[in-house]
Amino acid sequence: MTSLSSIEPAPRGLIDVRPALSVVGVLLALLGTAMLMPAMIDLYFGNADWIVFAGAALITVFVGGMLWITCRGRARSITLRQAFVMTTLAWLALVVFGALPLYWCNLNLSLTDAIFESMSGLTTTGATVINGLDNAPPGILFWRAQQQWLGGLGIIVMAVAVLPLLQIGGMQMFKTEAFETPDKILPRATQISGMLTLVYVGLTMACALAYLVAGMRLFDAVTHAMTTVATGGFSTHDASFGYFDSAAIEMIAVAFMLLGSLPFLLFVRIIQGKPADLFRDTQVRVFLAILAGLTALITIRLLFNGLPFGEALRDAAFNLTSIMTGTGFATDGYHLWGSFAVTIFFIATFLGGCAGSTSCGIKTFRIIIVWEDLKQHLRRIVYPNAIAIKRYNGRPLPDHVSAAVQSFIFLYMALFALLAVALNLTGLDTLTALSGAATAISNVGPGLGDVIGPSTTFAAVPDAAKWLLSAGMLIGRLEIFTILVLFIPAFWR
Amino acid sequence: MTSLSSIEPAPRGLIDVRPALSVVGVLLALLGTAMLMPAMIDLYFGNADWIVFAGAALITVFVGGMLWITCRGRARSITLRQAFVMTTLAWLALVVFGALPLYWCNLNLSLTDAIFESMSGLTTTGATVINGLDNAPPGILFWRAQQQWLGGLGIIVMAVAVLPLLQIGGMQMFKTEAFETPDKILPRATQISGMLTLVYVGLTMACALAYLVAGMRLFDAVTHAMTTVATGGFSTHDASFGYFDSAAIEMIAVAFMLLGSLPFLLFVRIIQGKPADLFRDTQVRVFLAILAGLTALITIRLLFNGLPFGEALRDAAFNLTSIMTGTGFATDGYHLWGSFAVTIFFIATFLGGCAGSTSCGIKTFRIIIVWEDLKQHLRRIVYPNAIAIKRYNGRPLPDHVSAAVQSFIFLYMALFALLAVALNLTGLDTLTALSGAATAISNVGPGLGDVIGPSTTFAAVPDAAKWLLSAGMLIGRLEIFTILVLFIPAFWR
Repeated sequence: MTSLSSIEPAPRGLIDVRPALSVVGVLLALLGTAMLMPAMIDLYFGNADWIVFAGAALITVFVGGMLWITCRGRARSITLRQAFVMTTLAWLALVVFGALPLYWCNLNLSLTDAIFESMSGLTTTGATVINGLDNAPPGILFWRAQQQWLGGLGIIVMAVAVLPLLQIGGMQMFKTEAFETPDKILPRATQISGMLTLVYVGLTMACALAYLVAGMRLFDAVTHAMTTVATGGFSTHDASFGYFDSAAIEMIAVAFMLLGSLPFLLFVRIIQGKPADLFRDTQVRVFLAILAGLTALITIRLLFNGLPFGEALRDAAFNLTSIMTGTGFATDGYHLWGSFAVTIFFIATFLGGCAGSTSCGIKTFRIIIVWEDLKQHLRRIVYPNAIAIKRYNGRPLPDHVSAAVQSFIFLYMALFALLAVALNLTGLDTLTALSGAATAISNVGPGLGDVIGPSTTFAAVPDAAKWLLSAGMLIGRLEIFTILVLFIPAFWR
Repeated sequence: MTSLSSIEPAPRGLIDVRPALSVVGVLLALLGTAMLMPAMIDLYFGNADWIVFAGAALITVFVGGMLWITCRGRARSITLRQAFVMTTLAWLALVVFGALPLYWCNLNLSLTDAIFESMSGLTTTGATVINGLDNAPPGILFWRAQQQWLGGLGIIVMAVAVLPLLQIGGMQMFKTEAFETPDKILPRATQISGMLTLVYVGLTMACALAYLVAGMRLFDAVTHAMTTVATGGFSTHDASFGYFDSAAIEMIAVAFMLLGSLPFLLFVRIIQGKPADLFRDTQVRVFLAILAGLTALITIRLLFNGLPFGEALRDAAFNLTSIMTGTGFATDGYHLWGSFAVTIFFIATFLGGCAGSTSCGIKTFRIIIVWEDLKQHLRRIVYPNAIAIKRYNGRPLPDHVSAAVQSFIFLYMALFALLAVALNLTGLDTLTALSGAATAISNVGPGLGDVIGPSTTFAAVPDAAKWLLSAGMLIGRLEIFTILVLFIPAFWR
């Protein structure tokens, strides 16, 4: 793979997209290889769809290989702009080729549905258009889980190795932690990616084991472990976690959704013998505090509904963790818990987990930075002549990072509003449009209301809305700016 | 009156509130004197309520005079912190004493209703709890208009002379325009306040004359002129401007609502012989452009409803100008124009007019600054090593102003969410709670839906919600931070 050895602007002239295409080629070849897993599973269970997976694998590996062969070796490093093009192209290509088995399998999905499901999978959103999961063939169920698992890993590596360099929405804050100098990126990136993958595989295996012990059958344990650690939310049952109806299984899910939402670099620190870093990290502490606070509010609300304390806490903790981490599993129709609860869930949809995790949304570090800026402004008002330094995680917080974070949040909210109005114009009612827009750009999964709420699927939504939602998922996942810069003429000059 | 001659922190020890109280005393005496107008009007029309106004005037002038006598002359200048205390105390005192005639008059308002109406008047919000305006006594109708008119003048002077010094939410941007050095504030403030008052009186008289010519009777022309230029929104008829049903009157209202939302210092410039400054001002141009754009969208939407073009444009222009300027007059139930229109009106509720006007909401200059920051962030992503300077109105825009503006907007939205949840908990439905919170902190007037929509009043809302809404109006009017700092322990040390 080529290295991100330069953050200089590209030389004048058209951007050479070949290095980006060669990386996309390698990733497609890997995706194609991954399709052999569901092919083998369908073959084992005697399902005819194994041919679909084998065929899709062949095509994907072939296209990926050709891209790599024709474009490799053109450049020894890639520029900042090529990195932007590479990131967007890679996600698009993986979504399109990942949709092939979904389009060809015996579930009779339309092209729109296949792309929607593939996008929802790879971006770890978890919104589905498939009704009747309980009777769906095992290969397709495994593929959906695998897409989320691969997407989750891709997001962690992207968040740690790529986004900080691209200076997206304040992510430059996390640059120095992993990569001090640009020219040492390749060895460090390879080394760190390897360790991150190790952590990710380890967590997934631990989760699967815990699910097995708690009573899930092997297939469910493995697929749900993949979509839990990825904070994805695809299930193999229409009733999601409601199917198991087990407090133990739900608590395991809560634990691993939380682990999937913490900064993965801190897990690497634990392996390196610094476990204390995890609990000293501001982001981790604030994330857990917000989640605990909201869970307490919802628990109290459910007590008013007459639920016993244990059940109220269990329902609140599971569903709120699921939404705030951007997973999207459900055990109950929380849209029926009253308008106060709905408001809390709506707010939680936007919050998200920590940067450098599989989680999504606005993310905790941005909320902390907004809070620090607010305190700074109040300090300036009360002591106009005092010099006060803002801090994040003990280090000074420069003004340009604040500005980047705040621009990100404004753009996020503007995009949300625009998407909601667009969805509204396709004929969706206001609640469906608002919650659909929020759940798509925050990569959460379920919306609110009867059409796309936690007890149902996105199957009934018109095609135009499905394409809008798919675009929203991708833009949200790539933190908006990665895609937005491609539409700026100055970028291509 | 004492001068704001220092922006240094106060000396250690408790804040001396006496200079602030003496200013409040003077303002109360002026308010009490103003109550003689409705007293004379009621006397002229033979209404018994003239005694209420005379009594309230006596009490208010007496309390104000005593405050002034006991507290005057203690200090020759007031500190920054005293200015914060003074601003909040002044608004609270004027609202409470302004509520006296409303509480005592023959409309049988409860104390809650009287405070709500007085707050809505003085903050130029325009939400009312009074049904049957058409049969209400003239004194009370005049007093409501007069409260909005005085509130509007107070806001302009506060926005020009006080808020920039307090550095509230980016208002420091407007400091140098009027007051270069702190020690020259008093003479300049007096001079500028005089000119601003002249402009304000002139605009009101022009508006009243235009209404008269267009067919209003004298009383309606004067009261509506006062609430139009103040972008207040109180009417003397339950049907608001729908009562007149005249395109000419509506176009006059649009023109003067717009004038009331432009920066009043630029009108002073016109008197000083620099009319071009008005059209060269970024804020004015962007404000008019946003309003024109939204009006076009709503006009198109109404064409789909089958309205002829002229009528669609008239309805769209009047109602949208009324909401975006924070006036709150209505001619039609725009909440029945479909969910796309409702979304646009909901967004317009937040936008507001220009800084230094009678208008309210987030205000155009903050929207411009957010936009400039977003462009800056995109520029940094595309050209990481280039140095780019942000500009506002041709001058460099410092990062700490951006930070202040963005903190303001975040706090604004957080306060909106908090108020909406609190209103929700008092038993209001979601739409009423959301639109009520928005209309209160943006000082607009009508909400959405059947309970508080443009065709109805706030009478049916529970008392707890009325107090919450009153608090929201005050906090929004004082740009949040003015009140918020009073709750910070460090402020009092």
